[in-house]
Formats: sequence, C-alpha cells, structure tokens
Amino acid sequence: MSTLAVAGGRVLLPHRDDETRSSRASDHSIAEADVLVDADSGEVLDVGPDLVDSADETLDASGGLVIPGLVNAHGHAAMTLLRGYADDKPLEAWLQEDIWPAEAELAAEDVAAGTRLAAVEMIRSGTTAFADMYFHVGEVVEAVREAGLRARVGHGVVTVGKDEKAARADFAESLSVAEEFDGAADGRVRTAVMPHAPHTVGTEYFEEFVPQAREAGIPLHFHLNETEAYLDPVEEEAGVRPTEYADDLGLLAEDTWVAHGVHLDAGEIERLAETGTTVAHCPASNMKLASGMAPIQDLLDAGVNVALGTDGAASNNDLDMFDELRDAAMLGKLAADDAEAVDADAAVRMATEGGAEALGFDAGRIETGAKADLAVVDLEAPHLTPQHDLVSHLAYAARGSDVRHTVCDGEVLMRDREVLTLDEEAVRERAEEAARELVARAEG
Amino acid sequence: MSTLAVAGGRVLLPHRDDETRSSRASDHSIAEADVLVDADSGEVLDVGPDLVDSADETLDASGGLVIPGLVNAHGHAAMTLLRGYADDKPLEAWLQEDIWPAEAELAAEDVAAGTRLAAVEMIRSGTTAFADMYFHVGEVVEAVREAGLRARVGHGVVTVGKDEKAARADFAESLSVAEEFDGAADGRVRTAVMPHAPHTVGTEYFEEFVPQAREAGIPLHFHLNETEAYLDPVEEEAGVRPTEYADDLGLLAEDTWVAHGVHLDAGEIERLAETGTTVAHCPASNMKLASGMAPIQDLLDAGVNVALGTDGAASNNDLDMFDELRDAAMLGKLAADDAEAVDADAAVRMATEGGAEALGFDAGRIETGAKADLAVVDLEAPHLTPQHDLVSHLAYAARGSDVRHTVCDGEVLMRDREVLTLDEEAVRERAEEAARELVARAEG
Ligand SMILES: [Zn+2]
Ligand SMILES: [Zn+2]
Repeated sequence: MSTLAVAGGRVLLPHRDDETRSSRASDHSIAEADVLVDADSGEVLDVGPDLVDSADETLDASGGLVIPGLVNAHGHAAMTLLRGYADDKPLEAWLQEDIWPAEAELAAEDVAAGTRLAAVEMIRSGTTAFADMYFHVGEVVEAVREAGLRARVGHGVVTVGKDEKAARADFAESLSVAEEFDGAADGRVRTAVMPHAPHTVGTEYFEEFVPQAREAGIPLHFHLNETEAYLDPVEEEAGVRPTEYADDLGLLAEDTWVAHGVHLDAGEIERLAETGTTVAHCPASNMKLASGMAPIQDLLDAGVNVALGTDGAASNNDLDMFDELRDAAMLGKLAADDAEAVDADAAVRMATEGGAEALGFDAGRIETGAKADLAVVDLEAPHLTPQHDLVSHLAYAARGSDVRHTVCDGEVLMRDREVLTLDEEAVRERAEEAARELVARAEG
Repeated sequence: MSTLAVAGGRVLLPHRDDETRSSRASDHSIAEADVLVDADSGEVLDVGPDLVDSADETLDASGGLVIPGLVNAHGHAAMTLLRGYADDKPLEAWLQEDIWPAEAELAAEDVAAGTRLAAVEMIRSGTTAFADMYFHVGEVVEAVREAGLRARVGHGVVTVGKDEKAARADFAESLSVAEEFDGAADGRVRTAVMPHAPHTVGTEYFEEFVPQAREAGIPLHFHLNETEAYLDPVEEEAGVRPTEYADDLGLLAEDTWVAHGVHLDAGEIERLAETGTTVAHCPASNMKLASGMAPIQDLLDAGVNVALGTDGAASNNDLDMFDELRDAAMLGKLAADDAEAVDADAAVRMATEGGAEALGFDAGRIETGAKADLAVVDLEAPHLTPQHDLVSHLAYAARGSDVRHTVCDGEVLMRDREVLTLDEEAVRERAEEAARELVARAEG
C-alpha cells in the first residue's frame, strides 16, 4: 500500500445532520488535521492529527484549507473551444446561429482537444469530478483517463428535426455508449443516458429507450425548464408541465439529475422532491443567457438535492466552480428576495456533497472511507484576509487560482499549481489551433 | 525624463465614437503595440510599435493584454477588516446588528490597516484608482500615498440619530476633510463631500452644506436607492422620489456620482441623464444583500455614464473588479430580461473609462496624454484559451489573479505579481490582528 498525507493544514469537514437537506441544516466544521490517503485504493484512510509520519508521500497543506474536490455537475467540456466565440445573445439565437453550426463541424479530435483544455482548467481550479453531455464520448473518456479526473459521461440525444431512423439511432447510441464506457479509467468513468431535454426528444423515443436504460441500471441526465421556451412545446403537446411529463415517462428518480430547473412551479418542485431527483443549478449560464433565476432556496426547503454546474464554457465563460459557488449564493438571495437564502454553507454543500450525490460518487466530503478527491486552497492571500469565517471565504472570496494542489482518487493531479497529468502548454496550443480551424470550417 | 515601456503585448484601445454612451456604441479595439510612459509626469507618451528602444525601463507584456487600470468607483476600503464577519443577512439587520457595532469601535489604526489590505488586494487585481467613503480619512490618504494608487476620498456623513450639533459637525468635517486632502500624494488623491444617503442626512444639512461644497468646487458622492427601504422615508417626507429630491437640493451634477441606483423609475433615470450624474453600479453587493437588480441597460440607453464599484468587502466579499465586470454583464442581462443587454464591451467601458469619468481622473483609457494607469493581463492560461475575443475574456473569463503587472501614474506598483510599494506579508499580518481585536471589542 502506498500512502499520501495531505498535511499541516486545516480541513473542511462535512456536516453530520442528515435529517434534512435544507440549507440551514448544513453546517460544515473546520479542524486542524492531516488527511491520510491510500493512493492505491484512492480512498481516505484517516483524518486527524499527526498522520504525516505514517505516509510515503506528503503534500504540504500548511497555511491552506483542505476541501473536498469540487464537483461540476453539468457541462459540455469540449465547448471550451467556443469560449468567447459568440456572447451576448439569447439562448435560441445563440444556439441556432452560432453554436449548432460550429458543433456540426466538430470532429472527434476537436472533442479530444476541447475536453483536455477543460480538464486542465478544472484541475487548476480544484474540480475533481464532472458531468459531461456531449458527442464523441470515447474521446471524452480518453481525456478523463489521461487527466486523472472522475466523470459521469454520456452521449447527448436530440431527435427533433431528425427522421425516425436517425432519431432512433441517436438514442440507441446514448444507451450503447453508456454501456460501453461504464467503469472505464479504473472505475473513475461512469456513464448516463443523456436525452437533451423533454422538448427536443420525441415522446415515442423516451417510451422506447428509457425503460431499457432503467433495466440496465443506467442513470439519466437532461436539461429541464432552462428557459421559458422550454415549457410551451411540452405543455402544448402533453398538457402538463415538463417535470410532470418527465415523471410520467419514468425519467425522474434518485439516480436522475436534471440541469437548470430555472422555471419550476410548486407542483414541479414537489415532483422533484418526491422522486429524489437532483437539480444541477447553473447560475452563471442562467444569467449570461438571461434564462432566469432558479428557485434554489425553494428547492432546498422542499428537500431537493441541489448540485452546481458551469454548463459549457461558451455560456459562462469559464469552468471555475468557485465562480459557480459565489454565483449560487448571490443569485439564490436575489431569486428569493431574501439575503438569508442560499447561505455560504448551503452553496459549499452544493458544490461538493450535492454534486457527488448527483453523480453517484462516494466523494464530496473528506472522511474515512470516502474517495480521496480533494483540493488544497491557499488561504495566505490578501483577498482571504482576515480569516473570520473560512466557509464564507469559500463561497464569496476564494477563486480557482487559490487552489495549490488537486488530488483525485488518491492521485496528485496538480502540485504547487503545476498540472502533473497533462502537458498544459501542449493542451493549450492544440486547443487554440483546433478552435481556429473549427470556426473557419463553420464560417466558411 | 525617465521612461517606461510596457512592451511586447497587445493593447486594449478605447472606442472613438463619443456621440453616445450606449453600450452598442462602445467598441474597443485591440492592437499589437508597446506603451511608452513618462514615469515623471505619470502620463502616456506614445502607443505604437517598437517603443522599447527609447525607454529607460521595460515591463514585459509578451503574451499579455495591456488594459487601462480598473477603476473601483464605490467602496469603503477599510471594511476589508470585516470580510466574512457577517454574511447572509439583509442590509438593515446586517448594518444594525453587525457592521455598525463593529464600526463604532474602529480606530484610526484600524482604518490604516484595513485600507492597506484593500490597497494590496486592488493592486494585485489590476485596480489603479478607487473611490472611498469612510472615516479617519487622513489614514486613507496615507495608505493611498504609500500604495501608489489614485483615489477620490471623503468622509461619510450620517446625521440621523445625532443631535444638531453633532450632525452639523459631521457634515462640516466632510467639507473640511475634502479641502484638507485634495491634491495629496502628488495629486493622486482627490476628494469629495460624501453624505451617506438622502434618507440618512437631514434636509437642513444638505441645504446648509451642499452650496458650500459647490462653491468650493468639491464633487459629491452618496448612496442612492440601494434598497426599497431607501425610498419610503424620502417619499414620505418630501413627497417625491429620492433622485428628484436630491436634484432639487442641488446634489446632482456632472461631478456627482451616486452608488447603487438599484430602484430607479423612468423619471429618476431621466434626472440622472439630464444632470450628467454617474451611477456607480455595485452588482455583487446588490446580489449579496438581495437589494435588487439595477436597470443598467436602461441607464446606458438614457445616456447615463455608468461606473462599477465593489462596495465594501463585507458585502462582496472581495475587491476584485474582474468579478464586478462579470457580474455587471451577467446581472445586466437578467435585469433587462435580454441576453444582448450590457455586453462585454459595455461592461469593460464601465470598469475603465466610465469609472475614470465618474471620479474625474484623466485615465481609464490608454492613449497619448492620458494618465499612465494600466495593468497587464496574462492571456496564457487555460481559462483564457482559445482567444476568439479578448474583450469577452475581460468581461467573462479573466480574474484578478491573471494580472501580471500593475502601473499607476507611471509607477510600477506590481511587477510579475510582486507588490513593490507595500510589504504584502506585513500588511496581511497587521490586518488579521486588527480585525481580531476589532471584533473582540465589538462583541465584548
Ligand atoms: Zn447544458
Ligand atoms: Zn456603499
């Protein structure tokens, strides 16, 4: 057994009250402690004082706070290639005029380049696990394997605008991709079936394929009620709100997580709570596309598990989960018209345990037996001084560039801000080149 | 003459269409160029190719973007001592239960410590000029002098809850402080008279002192319509909206800038436009205190100059103007229910030219004759790859930690992320100590 001690710092410990998921119940604590990791099994062996002597290797956490690796619960990693390509446009026009034409030109090697760029960015900002809905999933898996990250990946399905054969083939691919890659990269890769949204996939395909996914034990992930425009097609055809429609089709469950959930009425929130479905909140994307404000405090009050996601870099424009944490706490207050809503503790829980629960990973918290996915945040910075409240700092003042080390599955992915698993410079150059060529093809 | 060349990078140049201030008219351009600075006069001598040979000193901007130093147009710098001290509370309770009791214990040396901490944080994130409304202004001035920053400072006046003598003395102090310190620190310090807000200062004091300030040519700065609670006292007493009340008292003018302006009706926006008054938008503070969403696109459309401010660190919780830039672009869209509103260009203009105009500094743009206040943003980072659009990157993806060098008034304040004018480590230690003692006094 080879062991690693993350030593000399303080540690963010999970709240222990599991009776309710409401924000007021979350209550992290901070202890001076070392974290001892089994680098082979990738699990935390112990959290406590003076564990450094028993370790083969040490990661210096002095002056730092050891936190669970952040979990990015919704995104499209390779869209980093389109970061800043088209901004300041509403969702539908942005998709139809800019994003879809560019994505139509996406080749496997573009997904390889874009996902590696995303991986470097995530590692540098303390994210250790992410969800990915995209295409060329084999390339995503290979990038995850190389990067050393943990991910729940899937092939995104859209059937509108396709003939029946192409539509069935697309949904079938999502299922076969999920079966093919589950457990890849030493188990760090898990999969899901990922229909894009209730209104972009035909009812008949949900009816045919969702039972197959359920039978195979494969989780589901889709976009739900992101904009007002998501509601009408479903309400007109099915006569019910999209969340009820999704529930009636068997789409909601404890292993389902939906992205966005901006426009939800009380009945829909109740359905999400009853079925144990997670909402992956994407506050930055919702602001940038003027989609609206998700009722996060209402979801928490109803007992819904909430996770956080960056969405694709084209609507964010970065993958720094510390921005998302801050945005979630900030926007949650505005949405509730209540400065006490979505407090720092609740936001931190969403970015860690909430995300891990959504993606089905035994991570998001630092304790014996959990996966050793963690980051060390350097506290010795002017913007993190004074240290009245470190949980507040995580939510409101820290940023990705404060992360000193990143560890996933017991492996050190970044040490002293040097990414060890990928060649950052080469990844950046390749992505820049792929992005220019992609845009040239899309516009040519 | 001693010269400095900021060389080898690209430069963000100001838009040249001054016919309208609407966001659609702002249109920065990017050129490969050097910037030659007269370190003695603190002005830009030239912007163009191959200026490095004529310079005494060089600052390497290769792989970077030279931008105007950011202008933080509203804040209370020494409130860094209360960063994270009390979060997740509504404005009135937060002020009355936490902030005012702590501020009541503030000594001059606390303001010295907190303002130096703010200065280090601002220099590290590319801010070169700021507005400060606080107490013990002599200490603020001394910190600005040492730090090498540019600032418009003033003593904050509150008369509610004071007897007439104390109230008059407070307003008189704001006036005498403005006269005493104007032009300090080689002209980098300018001053303003700073009544807190229309509803926290009695009408009779405005009537007595504002004409004196106008006569002395001293600008005015105050909080306007930050929350709904700001409106009622004025409307009840004066029978008009606060902006009309302020205008009737002579408070609005081209050299007046107001903070927040969250709750403004159409008539108020018109008054601000007619009088040439600037609004210093504080999006993070407005979200965190659930104050609301300022109608920024409406203000731009009406021709109002908009600047950006962090407000105090206790309601933000940092002084990184890149966060503010991003928040302004993001929240502006949500407020307008329009993803095209407050585009990247408009947000960048607010953080640079808009702020400089508000504070009356010949800065906020890089061109011959303007003050040499600038920052170099390192573009060689995963989150700034690919480089489809650098103005988009400034608004949506860059952060304070991407700033490589900071220059104010021709002096290098930070080189290769090392702050040269203040001892960062000592400043952090002193602030941590002052903060702990302050809280102990307030709670004891
Ligand atoms: Zn998405
Ligand atoms: Zn303020």
